[in-house]
Amino acid sequence: MNISPFRKLVPFEEALDTVLKNAAPVKRTGEVALAQSSGRVLSEDVLSGLDVPPFDRSAMDGYAVVSEDLVGTSENAPVTLKVVGELFAGDEAAFRVGRGTACRVATGAVLPEGADAVVMAEFSSEEAGFVRLLRAEPKWGNVSRRGSDMLKGTVVLSAGSVLDPAKVGVLASLGLPRAQVLSRPAVAVISSGKEVAEPGETLGPAQVFNSNSYTLASLVNQSGGEARILPRMEDTAEAIRGSIERAGRENFDLVAISGGSSVGERDLLAGVLARMGEMLFHGVQIKPGKPFLFGRVGKLLVFGVPGYPAACLTVGHVFLAPAVRKMAGLPERKKTVRAKLSRRVASRLGRVQFLTVRLSGGTAEPVFKESGAITSLAAADGFIVVPDNVELLEKGEEVEVVLF
Amino acid sequence: MNISPFRKLVPFEEALDTVLKNAAPVKRTGEVALAQSSGRVLSEDVLSGLDVPPFDRSAMDGYAVVSEDLVGTSENAPVTLKVVGELFAGDEAAFRVGRGTACRVATGAVLPEGADAVVMAEFSSEEAGFVRLLRAEPKWGNVSRRGSDMLKGTVVLSAGSVLDPAKVGVLASLGLPRAQVLSRPAVAVISSGKEVAEPGETLGPAQVFNSNSYTLASLVNQSGGEARILPRMEDTAEAIRGSIERAGRENFDLVAISGGSSVGERDLLAGVLARMGEMLFHGVQIKPGKPFLFGRVGKLLVFGVPGYPAACLTVGHVFLAPAVRKMAGLPERKKTVRAKLSRRVASRLGRVQFLTVRLSGGTAEPVFKESGAITSLAAADGFIVVPDNVELLEKGEEVEVVLF
Repeated sequence: MNISPFRKLVPFEEALDTVLKNAAPVKRTGEVALAQSSGRVLSEDVLSGLDVPPFDRSAMDGYAVVSEDLVGTSENAPVTLKVVGELFAGDEAAFRVGRGTACRVATGAVLPEGADAVVMAEFSSEEAGFVRLLRAEPKWGNVSRRGSDMLKGTVVLSAGSVLDPAKVGVLASLGLPRAQVLSRPAVAVISSGKEVAEPGETLGPAQVFNSNSYTLASLVNQSGGEARILPRMEDTAEAIRGSIERAGRENFDLVAISGGSSVGERDLLAGVLARMGEMLFHGVQIKPGKPFLFGRVGKLLVFGVPGYPAACLTVGHVFLAPAVRKMAGLPERKKTVRAKLSRRVASRLGRVQFLTVRLSGGTAEPVFKESGAITSLAAADGFIVVPDNVELLEKGEEVEVVLF
Repeated sequence: MNISPFRKLVPFEEALDTVLKNAAPVKRTGEVALAQSSGRVLSEDVLSGLDVPPFDRSAMDGYAVVSEDLVGTSENAPVTLKVVGELFAGDEAAFRVGRGTACRVATGAVLPEGADAVVMAEFSSEEAGFVRLLRAEPKWGNVSRRGSDMLKGTVVLSAGSVLDPAKVGVLASLGLPRAQVLSRPAVAVISSGKEVAEPGETLGPAQVFNSNSYTLASLVNQSGGEARILPRMEDTAEAIRGSIERAGRENFDLVAISGGSSVGERDLLAGVLARMGEMLFHGVQIKPGKPFLFGRVGKLLVFGVPGYPAACLTVGHVFLAPAVRKMAGLPERKKTVRAKLSRRVASRLGRVQFLTVRLSGGTAEPVFKESGAITSLAAADGFIVVPDNVELLEKGEEVEVVLF
């Protein structure tokens, strides 16, 4: 066992900056069915292939008329027109509306030729083939003009837009059954060390269950990535090299290796990484999460995530999730609330502390147990960031809580 | 065409209350693989089947010792102990640490029998089988005690908890490969009317593409439900009855029927519903979305959603999404920001208006075009709620924007 402290810790901001600079949006694209496309990122501009609506249509239930017939019409000076037909939405308009005539129309119906306005049903009474109208309408009153929503040939959604239900609706209304989207960044998640067993296996006498792979995979999936949990690997240089090579060969964009919680094991990954590619930093001025290591082998980003659950989750939230979001083409996620601290909290100058808290009734209650404990995190709603130049937060002080 | 106005509109709050009262959490449960379980709702309490950690373990890299050996130890009064072994995480502890001896341990290693504290590596120097320690540790110092994180037999997560990455980690650390969760509410989405064609089909001369089914399905899916788009149906009482019967037979929890945008068509659904089950209301004092209809046939909730895209999406956000979340066992979603209105907005007394807005630099800019337009919604970030007793919102007024 080679017990050696970290040589030089990098400041938090610098570490995050390095991670995000290296996290480039994926270039791969694909197609998804419209009903599954919400949350995905458009890979290209969407041009309207048609006018929407594709024809002038009635915006109301009522009577399609020639607006000039109704100039001056009011309750005291009604106008009576001959009803020449009836159109429901979807009916083809097989006849025209001329002066002195009207056509009963439903909302969404094609405006029949000749008509240029619709009088709402509320202002009408029909009897024996004639309708009395009590109100004038200007030209195109209550008519949705062809192309007024989207004009053929114009860009209606830009590349990079994140699809939401309304944007999915736009694609549908253009007649597109599939969306062209950015592929989700492919993230391999691996745990290392003989001290972990997989959930479902039998625990050896000195083992704990692997939780980090599942925590990290969940974080990746909810950040717009696609996580795959690879088989656990041994803590040997050969095994680590083999796993990184495999991740590269299988076209992963990022590999997150958790574990190697002892300094000796961390040094293993650092050494392998330095030989295979680039070690960008090893050790960050944060708590928990100090042993976090980051580098790359060609296009493959390598996250060396500390093995202790709290440290793993912190690194996951603070570094991995933003990196995956950026690679997925998603905007930065900033979900914060302000709350008052339930008790005084001490920190240490020179490092950024991430303090998990539970929210209740406007107060933020610290719930951190120890780096090895996972229940404290499960009870937390988010974390507060204690800057590296702050030693003490007072009880009742207002803090910003970054929500999980 | 039977053109008749709505008989009596229900106030917004009453309508929402009726919808939510009828939206009962689903009782069906199922199993999901842990890596796919984030966002799901636990259907039962989770009891710890083991102590976590399952043994006393070292929380640091250092030396496992008998704490009594170090009473009074300091830099000026170091103590030297014989090193009897070395334990990495995962190693079985095959020997014991007695008085006068120490064992090199890595973070996560089993604490060897006899030892009751760990001195951090920073305060040690080892040479020729002996270690000089510069610091005392109290009993159980730097030791994670067996069961300190989770105690066997205790409830660690309660039924109804929404799984997030940390809670997924808790399940994993208990060795559970799957989570027992509530099934997602099954929602059938149907469009009616011959005026709509499906994306991918060829548009008839009086047709528009069906966007509502995709908008609603996306909303349902992101609200914790599982949407299935059923084939478009005709606007006849038989077709409507058939679709509702099918939805019931196939065990859907909710059917959302969009379209029937004319008063006549709306009356069709209302009539069918009144005969088959219960019509709970028809017509709400809101804009857009006034024609919204709600009822139930046995356990099946029936949403009659207005056909116009903006009205459809508004009803989707305001009624459907909260109902689906409640049925899914998810907490109410309240994502709002405050912003200043970019221009004066008029409303009408006696109805609640939902005004879509785009956010930019702290201002909320209304983007509503007309009920038939879908692009205005695609450009919006959320909506503001103008209460029914407000006629005017001034430019610069602070408003709360409910984010999409």
